[in-house]
Amino acid sequence: MAKITTIIDIGSNSARMAIFQKTSRYGFHLIHELKSKVRISEGSYEHDSYLQPQAMARALNALKEFKKVSDSLKSRKLICVATSALRDAPNKAEFIAQVKKECGIAIKVIDGTKEAYYGALACANLLHEKSGVTIDIGGGSTELACIENGVIQTMVSLNLGSIRLKELFFDHNNMQEAYRYVRKYVKEHIKDIKAFCASSSFMNNLNVFGIGGSIRAYAKYEMDLESYAFNFLHGYELCVENILEHLETITHASNEWLLESGFEEGRIDSIRPGLLILQVILEELSAKKLIISGVGVREGAFLNDMLRYHHGKLPNDINPSVRSLQDIFLTSLDDSKTISKHTKTLFNLLKEPYDLEDSHLQALQVASKLYNIGANFNFYQAHKHSAYIALHSLHYGFGHKERYTIATLLESSHKKRPKIITQTLENLLPEHDALQILSFIFALSVALAKEKKITLEFRDYTLSIGIHALPLQQALKEIVLPRLEEYPRLGFIVNEI
Amino acid sequence: MAKITTIIDIGSNSARMAIFQKTSRYGFHLIHELKSKVRISEGSYEHDSYLQPQAMARALNALKEFKKVSDSLKSRKLICVATSALRDAPNKAEFIAQVKKECGIAIKVIDGTKEAYYGALACANLLHEKSGVTIDIGGGSTELACIENGVIQTMVSLNLGSIRLKELFFDHNNMQEAYRYVRKYVKEHIKDIKAFCASSSFMNNLNVFGIGGSIRAYAKYEMDLESYAFNFLHGYELCVENILEHLETITHASNEWLLESGFEEGRIDSIRPGLLILQVILEELSAKKLIISGVGVREGAFLNDMLRYHHGKLPNDINPSVRSLQDIFLTSLDDSKTISKHTKTLFNLLKEPYDLEDSHLQALQVASKLYNIGANFNFYQAHKHSAYIALHSLHYGFGHKERYTIATLLESSHKKRPKIITQTLENLLPEHDALQILSFIFALSVALAKEKKITLEFRDYTLSIGIHALPLQQALKEIVLPRLEEYPRLGFIVNEI
Repeated sequence: MAKITTIIDIGSNSARMAIFQKTSRYGFHLIHELKSKVRISEGSYEHDSYLQPQAMARALNALKEFKKVSDSLKSRKLICVATSALRDAPNKAEFIAQVKKECGIAIKVIDGTKEAYYGALACANLLHEKSGVTIDIGGGSTELACIENGVIQTMVSLNLGSIRLKELFFDHNNMQEAYRYVRKYVKEHIKDIKAFCASSSFMNNLNVFGIGGSIRAYAKYEMDLESYAFNFLHGYELCVENILEHLETITHASNEWLLESGFEEGRIDSIRPGLLILQVILEELSAKKLIISGVGVREGAFLNDMLRYHHGKLPNDINPSVRSLQDIFLTSLDDSKTISKHTKTLFNLLKEPYDLEDSHLQALQVASKLYNIGANFNFYQAHKHSAYIALHSLHYGFGHKERYTIATLLESSHKKRPKIITQTLENLLPEHDALQILSFIFALSVALAKEKKITLEFRDYTLSIGIHALPLQQALKEIVLPRLEEYPRLGFIVNEI
Repeated sequence: MAKITTIIDIGSNSARMAIFQKTSRYGFHLIHELKSKVRISEGSYEHDSYLQPQAMARALNALKEFKKVSDSLKSRKLICVATSALRDAPNKAEFIAQVKKECGIAIKVIDGTKEAYYGALACANLLHEKSGVTIDIGGGSTELACIENGVIQTMVSLNLGSIRLKELFFDHNNMQEAYRYVRKYVKEHIKDIKAFCASSSFMNNLNVFGIGGSIRAYAKYEMDLESYAFNFLHGYELCVENILEHLETITHASNEWLLESGFEEGRIDSIRPGLLILQVILEELSAKKLIISGVGVREGAFLNDMLRYHHGKLPNDINPSVRSLQDIFLTSLDDSKTISKHTKTLFNLLKEPYDLEDSHLQALQVASKLYNIGANFNFYQAHKHSAYIALHSLHYGFGHKERYTIATLLESSHKKRPKIITQTLENLLPEHDALQILSFIFALSVALAKEKKITLEFRDYTLSIGIHALPLQQALKEIVLPRLEEYPRLGFIVNEI
């Protein structure tokens, strides 16, 4: 596979380009993204889906610009998919031929099922939750797919989209009609999805993975509302019970209200119909949690190509963001392995007495892999830089809580005892005592990074570390014991073996 | 030259190891540092400089530990130098043979002039000021060297050191005697240095580059005192006029006062004699500015090896920190070059009307080189990550003001107009209007990154940009004009060419 790959996605509302860099077989990250709100579907819903000349001209220009940027980044492969607007257009051949001729881009029109599959492929591989229903709300259509333990199941494509509804109903002030129409349409068309959910393990605890511009714009609104601590969308979680009322408010809101509430001007005319679709589907599915996905059709098309000999699935133990960081910074691999081994042994010893959760071990393991990455920028305060990089780079496959926990472990590996800065951030970390123990485990493991062979025992809340005679054990001496509120005090002793 | 090089420096007070990674011919950065306060000189000043058995045993153990860490980082070259304590010791051969036998490390005892040269080599190549006098205050000796425009001139080594004075005077409560002794000794031995300063261009505006543990500990104290915005020492500047009184206070202070003022316990017994030497030399030289150097003998020994065919001088246009970042992140080189070209053209057009300084052009050029480095971590908010990395990684060759200016340009390349966060930080940036203009220049250049051929004209405070017809000029439309307080409003227009 090419090292740099460009994916272009021509949606009804906007054309978007994402450029990915592969750093190794499974390591990759986004290096560029461009969006052009060409609205190729403009006017088409009232003209039997025929693409209109002005809209086609806008799209062609955008694709020329995209191609130029893609070439300048030395991208070696370009995949261009088009969805609902072109799918429906009787005159699509004309546009496709023109783009081929003038930009050298071969547009591949994908059907609704493929579109649903790409969105699901992205979520199944790049979100932290592995079961749920994806909802990809576009300008012309909405795709749903069921994922169970990372396996993509039932898929459906609905002829409901934010621009489509806007042109058919909202532009004519037929809002009441729109609500009725969407409710009825959804009820009729998601029966398979509902049936699958009812039969599956997540029946009463359904995650919905939300994809698309309307949902992202809405997520920003919610983040603002709760003064959320981070500014990354991917993996952001919302409790459906708490937000249905907000959705109701927004779908009925005036333009002025939307602008005052921070929605961008270019989003005003499509956000109401877009969120109406979301609201109805969340209600119909009795969803519990809405998890915002920053990845969708483009990442899906990329993964579909990258994983074509791997059944569309990244290996279980591979995280593309962690891998990508490791690929860029190849130092201290030996130490990482030793630290990782120590954290695992310590975790297993302390897990029961301190009620640690399995997810905590994963955080320790990832922190071990990244423990010294910050030293690439500045050896001094390297732990802080490692924490910064982890927090901002662990984009794929981590919930925000996991990201922040990993960053906190990296940061406290030096000072040895994590401090809680604000209440808001506290909710994004493990319980107080668990965090203290985890931080101790990590700091101790880092201090023992050069000791491949040690013995570890735990008895009477005391950890015995057997270690070969060392001239200096400065790092060990600096380890600060965890300060526990509810659990018994933990001590440790060091013996020579 | 080996890719990873270890330098060990056995001083009178502590043994230190620095491990450097070369990323290309001139790009390098520190990847590890270890310090062991073995105080090999302990007891020697009262025993005719004979190294004492216990002190030698401590040093041997430390070197074993160092070697182990160095090997684990796959260092391919190890250079070990020893200074004053070994230089003076009649029984050094015994210690050197033992270290060779038990650690496989060949100690090279360097004379005072070589020690002064190494410190000066580090400062001349890795500090932002290119003329001044280095003062390297160690446990057993103090070295001075004159640097003029990056060329190392007169050097001298004084038999004055923090541990030496402590053992000879302070331990016996002969403080008054110590003051007299140091004053007299310095007066007698720095005549050559004074003569050189008097004859040189920097006579009335002398920079002193301060090297060594005592000076670093003191710099931390000053940073605390003024609640300094950053936590990096290298390149930190102090006005001598303002600090002589502080030095007087510290050299006369009690242990309790020193501890309360934040000095570390292990530093208490040597900080007074160490800073006494500094105080006297600053006074004798009538120095204007004390610039803290985080680099010294170790970096000098490293550069001496790396630059052995280059007359000990990095090429003028090479900065090892910038180069090292570029080596790690090889993306977007083309864009960087185009942006750099645009910033230069724009700078030259706007320099006179807006009274820009030449140093501002350097900041623009470095920002151009690093403009997209943050995208390696997360494409979203990449400008923030670029700013973070620049601020913390531009360790060598930049003053703090330059570092922060570059970071601010990178950060505002997106939002387009820099905000001043606090008064403290404002002092570390160019004047308000200059910063607005620089930020505009940089944002505009980034927006034109894909346009290699443009025309730029400036007349009547309006910038005319001639550009080939472009399908999309979104980036240009988002450019925010500078908000100026004292200079005439700047406008710009875009024409097709």
